[in-house]
Amino acid sequence: MFEGQRVKFGMVGGGQGAFIGDVHRLAARLDDKLELVCGVFSRDLENSRATGQLLGLDPKRVYADYETMMREEAARAENDRMEFVSIVTPNHLHYPVAKAALLGGFHVLSDKPATKDLEQAASLRDIVKSTRRIFALTHTYLGYPLITHARDLISKGELGDIRKVFVEYLQGWLAKDVKNKQAAWRMDPERSGKSGCMADIGTHAHNLAEYVTAARMTHVAADLNIFGQGRQLDDDGSALFRMDGDIKGVLSASQICTGCENGLSIRVFGTEGGLEWSHENPNRMMRYYHDRPVEILTAAQSYLPDNISGRYRVPAGHPEGYIEAFANIYLEFAEAIRQEKGLSASIDNAVRGMAFIEALITSQNNGSAWTEIAS
Amino acid sequence: MFEGQRVKFGMVGGGQGAFIGDVHRLAARLDDKLELVCGVFSRDLENSRATGQLLGLDPKRVYADYETMMREEAARAENDRMEFVSIVTPNHLHYPVAKAALLGGFHVLSDKPATKDLEQAASLRDIVKSTRRIFALTHTYLGYPLITHARDLISKGELGDIRKVFVEYLQGWLAKDVKNKQAAWRMDPERSGKSGCMADIGTHAHNLAEYVTAARMTHVAADLNIFGQGRQLDDDGSALFRMDGDIKGVLSASQICTGCENGLSIRVFGTEGGLEWSHENPNRMMRYYHDRPVEILTAAQSYLPDNISGRYRVPAGHPEGYIEAFANIYLEFAEAIRQEKGLSASIDNAVRGMAFIEALITSQNNGSAWTEIAS
Amino acid sequence: MFEGQRVKFGMVGGGQGAFIGDVHRLAARLDDKLELVCGVFSRDLENSRATGQLLGLDPKRVYADYETMMREEAARAENDRMEFVSIVTPNHLHYPVAKAALLGGFHVLSDKPATKDLEQAASLRDIVKSTRRIFALTHTYLGYPLITHARDLISKGELGDIRKVFVEYLQGWLAKDVKNKQAAWRMDPERSGKSGCMADIGTHAHNLAEYVTAARMTHVAADLNIFGQGRQLDDDGSALFRMDGDIKGVLSASQICTGCENGLSIRVFGTEGGLEWSHENPNRMMRYYHDRPVEILTAAQSYLPDNISGRYRVPAGHPEGYIEAFANIYLEFAEAIRQEKGLSASIDNAVRGMAFIEALITSQNNGSAWTEIAS
Amino acid sequence: MFEGQRVKFGMVGGGQGAFIGDVHRLAARLDDKLELVCGVFSRDLENSRATGQLLGLDPKRVYADYETMMREEAARAENDRMEFVSIVTPNHLHYPVAKAALLGGFHVLSDKPATKDLEQAASLRDIVKSTRRIFALTHTYLGYPLITHARDLISKGELGDIRKVFVEYLQGWLAKDVKNKQAAWRMDPERSGKSGCMADIGTHAHNLAEYVTAARMTHVAADLNIFGQGRQLDDDGSALFRMDGDIKGVLSASQICTGCENGLSIRVFGTEGGLEWSHENPNRMMRYYHDRPVEILTAAQSYLPDNISGRYRVPAGHPEGYIEAFANIYLEFAEAIRQEKGLSASIDNAVRGMAFIEALITSQNNGSAWTEIAS
Repeated sequence: MFEGQRVKFGMVGGGQGAFIGDVHRLAARLDDKLELVCGVFSRDLENSRATGQLLGLDPKRVYADYETMMREEAARAENDRMEFVSIVTPNHLHYPVAKAALLGGFHVLSDKPATKDLEQAASLRDIVKSTRRIFALTHTYLGYPLITHARDLISKGELGDIRKVFVEYLQGWLAKDVKNKQAAWRMDPERSGKSGCMADIGTHAHNLAEYVTAARMTHVAADLNIFGQGRQLDDDGSALFRMDGDIKGVLSASQICTGCENGLSIRVFGTEGGLEWSHENPNRMMRYYHDRPVEILTAAQSYLPDNISGRYRVPAGHPEGYIEAFANIYLEFAEAIRQEKGLSASIDNAVRGMAFIEALITSQNNGSAWTEIAS
Repeated sequence: MFEGQRVKFGMVGGGQGAFIGDVHRLAARLDDKLELVCGVFSRDLENSRATGQLLGLDPKRVYADYETMMREEAARAENDRMEFVSIVTPNHLHYPVAKAALLGGFHVLSDKPATKDLEQAASLRDIVKSTRRIFALTHTYLGYPLITHARDLISKGELGDIRKVFVEYLQGWLAKDVKNKQAAWRMDPERSGKSGCMADIGTHAHNLAEYVTAARMTHVAADLNIFGQGRQLDDDGSALFRMDGDIKGVLSASQICTGCENGLSIRVFGTEGGLEWSHENPNRMMRYYHDRPVEILTAAQSYLPDNISGRYRVPAGHPEGYIEAFANIYLEFAEAIRQEKGLSASIDNAVRGMAFIEALITSQNNGSAWTEIAS
Repeated sequence: MFEGQRVKFGMVGGGQGAFIGDVHRLAARLDDKLELVCGVFSRDLENSRATGQLLGLDPKRVYADYETMMREEAARAENDRMEFVSIVTPNHLHYPVAKAALLGGFHVLSDKPATKDLEQAASLRDIVKSTRRIFALTHTYLGYPLITHARDLISKGELGDIRKVFVEYLQGWLAKDVKNKQAAWRMDPERSGKSGCMADIGTHAHNLAEYVTAARMTHVAADLNIFGQGRQLDDDGSALFRMDGDIKGVLSASQICTGCENGLSIRVFGTEGGLEWSHENPNRMMRYYHDRPVEILTAAQSYLPDNISGRYRVPAGHPEGYIEAFANIYLEFAEAIRQEKGLSASIDNAVRGMAFIEALITSQNNGSAWTEIAS
Repeated sequence: MFEGQRVKFGMVGGGQGAFIGDVHRLAARLDDKLELVCGVFSRDLENSRATGQLLGLDPKRVYADYETMMREEAARAENDRMEFVSIVTPNHLHYPVAKAALLGGFHVLSDKPATKDLEQAASLRDIVKSTRRIFALTHTYLGYPLITHARDLISKGELGDIRKVFVEYLQGWLAKDVKNKQAAWRMDPERSGKSGCMADIGTHAHNLAEYVTAARMTHVAADLNIFGQGRQLDDDGSALFRMDGDIKGVLSASQICTGCENGLSIRVFGTEGGLEWSHENPNRMMRYYHDRPVEILTAAQSYLPDNISGRYRVPAGHPEGYIEAFANIYLEFAEAIRQEKGLSASIDNAVRGMAFIEALITSQNNGSAWTEIAS
């Protein structure tokens, strides 16, 4: 991790009521290495301003539109302006915002899919190259330490030659007819592009397969479906695929698999071994061998190389949700100060904890005799 | 969640090389509702200053000792001074620091166990009451949404009369002879108090049992053990216990269970049902019934009440580690800007993603014919 | 279950060294409703006779070839002759043996696939119809109680309209070059037919999908692979498929997925719910809903209808392996009688068990005091 | 496994409506090495005769009482008489029947607990020694291959010095007030002895702990409970225990843990590693190490020694319930012959399976084109 000044960024999208903007901001805050300095959070300036205020931004840096933001931020002193733009809008705006940002001299971190279609993507690549700015997609799942470890193991040949990949991303939230903002833009060709489910989550599966194997997917034979009545874009699909190096595979993505939450998983099989990872328990991965027991790798363990365990923020054995649980304790405490709410573990609990320990020791000293806990 | 000004706090302990201070800071940062403004991070002023600098603190607010911190912060203007002290030192310092902070007019959020022994704890309770300050322990596990849900279900009588509780916290890191800072103070009666393992993690188990059942543990019959050669404090122990309301139970805590990572779990059985929760997958809980299938509850689902799902920061179905994975993506991007590192998902991935979608659609439009992915 | 005379049968195949014959015989013996009376266990008459002797058969009823068996058995008195033939040979013999048996007046229970190709299968169907004999395939997986329950739930509409089916059967035993009898005939077009892996285990997956949904698979788009060097038949493959009622799906079967044991699983999603079953833990099934927790159904529970729980032979909560564990106890005892082997639980264990109980009660009567176990 | 004549046995208990007798008989039948030749299945001679008839026994060998059985069987020619008695009665009859059998010259395989109290057990041991007959208890759980493997690993020192054992057996069936034959005798001191739950299932846990560690449990500190109203014997209990070799542990057994089915599990931790086994999935065991991933051992794998994999009756990767599923297929077929019932996989399925394979190959040969499945 670098030291020194935080990296400053602006955000387009992510106003109140939006889905993913808040997660972006939580994530950007976590390590204290980034600082949100400006934004256009919504087409609705009211919403945008309210969001900015909640985030403690300088009101002057909550802009009316992204063009203004690019212009005005560029006009600021170098060490005071935003350095990159985070794009969290619906799909159809990814391209114009990214283009404006790059041409304005800013790096770009964009939600996927990058653009509406391949032509736009190629155009964007040209702009990235000519402006020499940094562009990245938030393919979040690549952020899991064990996904990187999977890629490393495969690259080092520890699974032998890779033969078969199964990757899937199954959700159920569009199994019923859903009327909300999320569903609306995802199923609208104007805002989502040529594909619904595949563009939304199939791309994650595609990207994960390529990242982990470090191989390019070269061909598909696909069966995309529209199950929901009146929908114009696919809400489900499966494809047979081929990758460089004679790898064969199957990719499925669906938003109509009733009861599935966010079921991203990948399995890779080579001549010498296999790997299985599921988003349900992302800091654990199964490793398969010939003639040896299956192993369960867990992130942050001493048997993992430093580049992996170093990406895990909590002590080995603690699930990553531990930070959030911890944050709930801090938040509750801050609320108790501001709002006089009750506490989960107050001074009375503190006393009870000590009484518990003393009683244990007394019991132990008396041949495990039953001992009352004083308090 | 409250709006308005962030709650300011100082920290005692948590210098470089320490275990838990960083997790406290990550957690405090997550929701952008708190602000670390000062600290005494180490007895070693060098370490303390370096830590403060890394955290971007005003160097004047990195103090030489906690007494100074209390005095100088109290002297600042009211809306500029710290509002509470977070204590993350070894156990023996919890009491004197908490006492100084409370008497100095500050609220206290302290690591557990609260004090060295019961007498100190009772004294601390008196101080809390007389100063009317807020005091809480960071019993982190109470921060998991489903733990609160378990408590709510039990309080509403959904499990009938509670009869039996099993709670355990098993680690393996002291199974071998360990020589490090963490092991040293935990096994030193001067710094840890009368108990090692039980004070360190048994108290979490005790607290969890009381929190979930809302019942007081009244009696124990204990068997504490010292397995590691030359140790002076327990590194393992089990106890039979009794709680108010004729509840019986078993509590085990150990640091010598080879291969166990951080195995906190609780099971509660009542006349009408049971619950099982394990820290290994903390946002999932099993619910048992008579004559009905076992249910798997997962946090953030719509079938949970708002007070529970509202404590979960990511969309339903995403594991909480999702934030950390997301943060890795942001961090990697910031590193790319500062250190010209490579990226997991660059513009080439962006183009490939679009080519993938286009190929899917072409294949679909040609009777699932094999279609090359252009790029 | 019927009462009265056991059903008599003969077997073709299953000599010493063969794979599945012994499992057929164990299964046929379990409920004491069937009786093996004759057989042609191997082309090698020596092997066949040795097998017959081991099974306690009348040596006169171990025949030189299946034609002889059909003829001689048909010549016996009606209540003395075999009633059906169990066929456990390599694939290419299924058809001629079945045909001879049916024409000889016997019912047939055959391993799958039924024949070498579709033409033979159609011909076999004609023979079954004209001879009016009973013919069945040992699609073993249909024998699991929860598979039948899945079919019942779907047939009753409890999952709504079915939309998507995922079925797979993954093994790893052919990931390396294997030289044994099993591998040899499976990869030989003469003995296995037109397909290797798909005929061997893909048919199980196909059959399971049709059985559970009660729908016919109508179309496939397939990608079959030969990964093992020098092989002539597929050792891996995946197919997109369509079923009656607008059901879409994906089927994968593989014998090169390194480390996979016998991974048959099926997932079915409908408009109102989903089911997931895996062979790894076959007496447990997950049921998915909209807006309700996932349920874990376990076989033999009171909440299942009698037709399901009645197919489970052990008390609810006991895994089915319980019978085998029990059988090991009986076998060990029989061995102790015949071979003077040692015992897992002898009279000394019996005494220790009683001493344990007495010590518990003494401890309880003395306030949980530590009590020595006498013995 | 021995060859030659089957071992003949008689049974006391296990009449129609009884719980465990049928499981004993299934198990004894499985390997075709034992033969049930006589019995006293119930105090009620009608029931006993009906049971004998169902089992196909010679009616003359269904006796009025066990004393008669011992006398008349002893009077038969040596190679015609029973060789041992299997005792499956309520607890209070174990001793008198075993005694009569041993004195009558027969070996004894008895359900646990062996006797009503320790005094009787000691007396039984004297009789076993003086008659030089073989006596064993059906501690079924010792029959699982991986339990023996656990014992072997520990005996060879692979876990280092054993320090801690957790063993538990949790059921929920007595959480409510239950009125049936099973509950009645278990809670009746006359028939069950001094203990209810502990005698019934606690002894299994005790025995498992001793078997796996090959160490004797020497002391207990116990807390037994009666939760069910009006009961005279414990329906729940926990105990701290000590074993030879400075091993400490905790044992819990309960029949009031609502929703638990048959939760027997054991965890053993030594200086070098740990093991975890649960009855829920008995042919899988977790192995823990320092600084290495957790391993999942599965029975019948090539990496297990022959004495373990040889006790597993189905091919590696097949769950043991596979035999029962297979038996369901055979049974269904026998029923189809006797009762003209329908079949799960008939000739039509056979044809469909072949059509499926042909369609796969046609699709493959046409570039994965969609291909109709003919049939």
